[in-house]
Amino acid sequence: MLDATLAEIGPLDEAAMAAAHDLHARLTKPAGSLGALEELSIRLAGLAGVCPPPLPEPAAVAIFAADHGVHAQGVTPWPQEVTAQMVGNFLAGGAVVNAFARQTGATVTVVDVGVATPLTPAPVPAQRSGSPAPRLVTAKVRAGTRDMTARPALTRDEVRATVETGIRTAYELLDSGAGILVTGDMGIGNTTAAAALIAACTGIDPAEATGRGTGIDDATYARKVAVVRAALARHVPDPADPVGLLAAVGGLEHAALAGFILGGAARRVPVLLDGVSAVAAALVAAAFAPDAVGAMVAGHRSAEPGATAGLDRLGLLPIIDLGLRLGEGTGALLAYPVVAGAVRVLHEVATFDAAGVSEK
Amino acid sequence: MLDATLAEIGPLDEAAMAAAHDLHARLTKPAGSLGALEELSIRLAGLAGVCPPPLPEPAAVAIFAADHGVHAQGVTPWPQEVTAQMVGNFLAGGAVVNAFARQTGATVTVVDVGVATPLTPAPVPAQRSGSPAPRLVTAKVRAGTRDMTARPALTRDEVRATVETGIRTAYELLDSGAGILVTGDMGIGNTTAAAALIAACTGIDPAEATGRGTGIDDATYARKVAVVRAALARHVPDPADPVGLLAAVGGLEHAALAGFILGGAARRVPVLLDGVSAVAAALVAAAFAPDAVGAMVAGHRSAEPGATAGLDRLGLLPIIDLGLRLGEGTGALLAYPVVAGAVRVLHEVATFDAAGVSEK
Repeated sequence: MLDATLAEIGPLDEAAMAAAHDLHARLTKPAGSLGALEELSIRLAGLAGVCPPPLPEPAAVAIFAADHGVHAQGVTPWPQEVTAQMVGNFLAGGAVVNAFARQTGATVTVVDVGVATPLTPAPVPAQRSGSPAPRLVTAKVRAGTRDMTARPALTRDEVRATVETGIRTAYELLDSGAGILVTGDMGIGNTTAAAALIAACTGIDPAEATGRGTGIDDATYARKVAVVRAALARHVPDPADPVGLLAAVGGLEHAALAGFILGGAARRVPVLLDGVSAVAAALVAAAFAPDAVGAMVAGHRSAEPGATAGLDRLGLLPIIDLGLRLGEGTGALLAYPVVAGAVRVLHEVATFDAAGVSEK
Repeated sequence: MLDATLAEIGPLDEAAMAAAHDLHARLTKPAGSLGALEELSIRLAGLAGVCPPPLPEPAAVAIFAADHGVHAQGVTPWPQEVTAQMVGNFLAGGAVVNAFARQTGATVTVVDVGVATPLTPAPVPAQRSGSPAPRLVTAKVRAGTRDMTARPALTRDEVRATVETGIRTAYELLDSGAGILVTGDMGIGNTTAAAALIAACTGIDPAEATGRGTGIDDATYARKVAVVRAALARHVPDPADPVGLLAAVGGLEHAALAGFILGGAARRVPVLLDGVSAVAAALVAAAFAPDAVGAMVAGHRSAEPGATAGLDRLGLLPIIDLGLRLGEGTGALLAYPVVAGAVRVLHEVATFDAAGVSEK
């Protein structure tokens, strides 16, 4: 499934991009006055291979949840059980990602690819108008990764299985009618694995790639940087071997997210990236298939420094830059209306000719 | 009406802000992880005087349209008739602001406070689902301002009448059920007046306050800076006298926008600012009533340099920063879902206790 997906990923369609560029010049607005929205809409035309590209609606968020063996190294003060507890909160509709999803009409699918502790039965979701209930998909590959400072976090087979779960999730959501995929993640400790992946893919120092996650103190931060450095020194992962890289220092949610992005790219549908875990997965997806970058839209600039380094490497400009560091898909969902608006302009705005507006 | 409105504008409610701050600490997310959204939601609690503040919905955009005598000085290549033509386009639903309003469920009201050329009969709007038809309010104070390089743009009586039109527009939209006001503007040449207002209010040089508007060439830009400089040298407006300042170098839409902002502040409802004309009006509104700043939310950072100088002076952080320079209310509407999301968090997200999630 992975190989077939990679074979489907191709470059942007130049003719559709040229058509979108020309259309922008005829719409009733000064040329270029929508700034980065114009470039984004042109790229999405190239992705879809048609101008205008389809309105990217509805949005579908997939929250890949998993635990991390490196939690044992004391990289965060939060107990590992919080991953399972937050899955319950997502399913009950009580997390920030749920509030933002309700606001944008997005569906929420939680995919358990490796939660280590038992999922508590979710409370019955409060009935909320206009939004379907969140859904749980159980696709646990293993109960959390191994501690990457002691051994590879995953086997190559585990990585492939998890990447394929991400691809399958993308295909299922698109087959159910989603117009855009939104990345979400939950995993206590997952910014440590993300920092390791980003340092490996970009070549920056672990200290530059590592941030304070949920807001850790100086001693924990120093330990976290040392853990990332030790794991990279032990495995010396090759960024040109994405399966090996994920096996060495990845998280199960990063592997699944990489597959999810590849699935969107193969179907030529945009994938809206959330924070640092999504950026780490996007770098891995680009290692699998460089053309996958054409499907990626950077939702926001996470407060985690590795996210900015990764976005720079991918050549992506984030839409929202408000200091968020929550994950779950929250930053991406905030950016979703901007993406939809950029495409809507190509569908709905009148031309100078049609509206009887003079040009300069 | 102006004096009564000013008398109603007061400071933020400290108790409601403290309650919002405390509530954020109990919600199921790391403290501070929503970045600038947390500060914004706390301020909106202070504005409403209650925690959580009401959800800011629906949004109501008012597009104040007017022409400018300074157009005769060659500050833009666009013919003056485009102001009237774009009013027709707004009413037909064909402009970018209409597309963004449909996406966010916002109403669009066009207020003619001084269009110089006849409004062409609007084409019948194409039927669009889920969005009321745009509405025209005729409140023309005069057919465009006078040329500020030769004489005051407006009389003090004209300024007061126009500011009160803005206040009345705010009150009418709020009485009709709007939960947040969004500023829009249309007026060929209005970035010239905006630059003059911003230079006068902030003390920066006209060359720093003046931008390229719709995208003018070097010769036109040099002329535009010289025009702003000449107008300010002729009138030497006192920024502490907002009526006199608007009379000297303002536009009718800036006067109306200042009133619109004051009306929102008096009713303690947020006013989402669009681009450089809104920022110029916001500086004037703050000169009328410093506490009005508490009601202002900066939608985006316009590409016009004066907008950034004005936002800095007001202490406002823009939500969107994507190089837009279109006006109409477009940048503010893109930011609207972020504002709504910030408030929604306080209404809908579960607490650690209620969700059974462990704290660190």
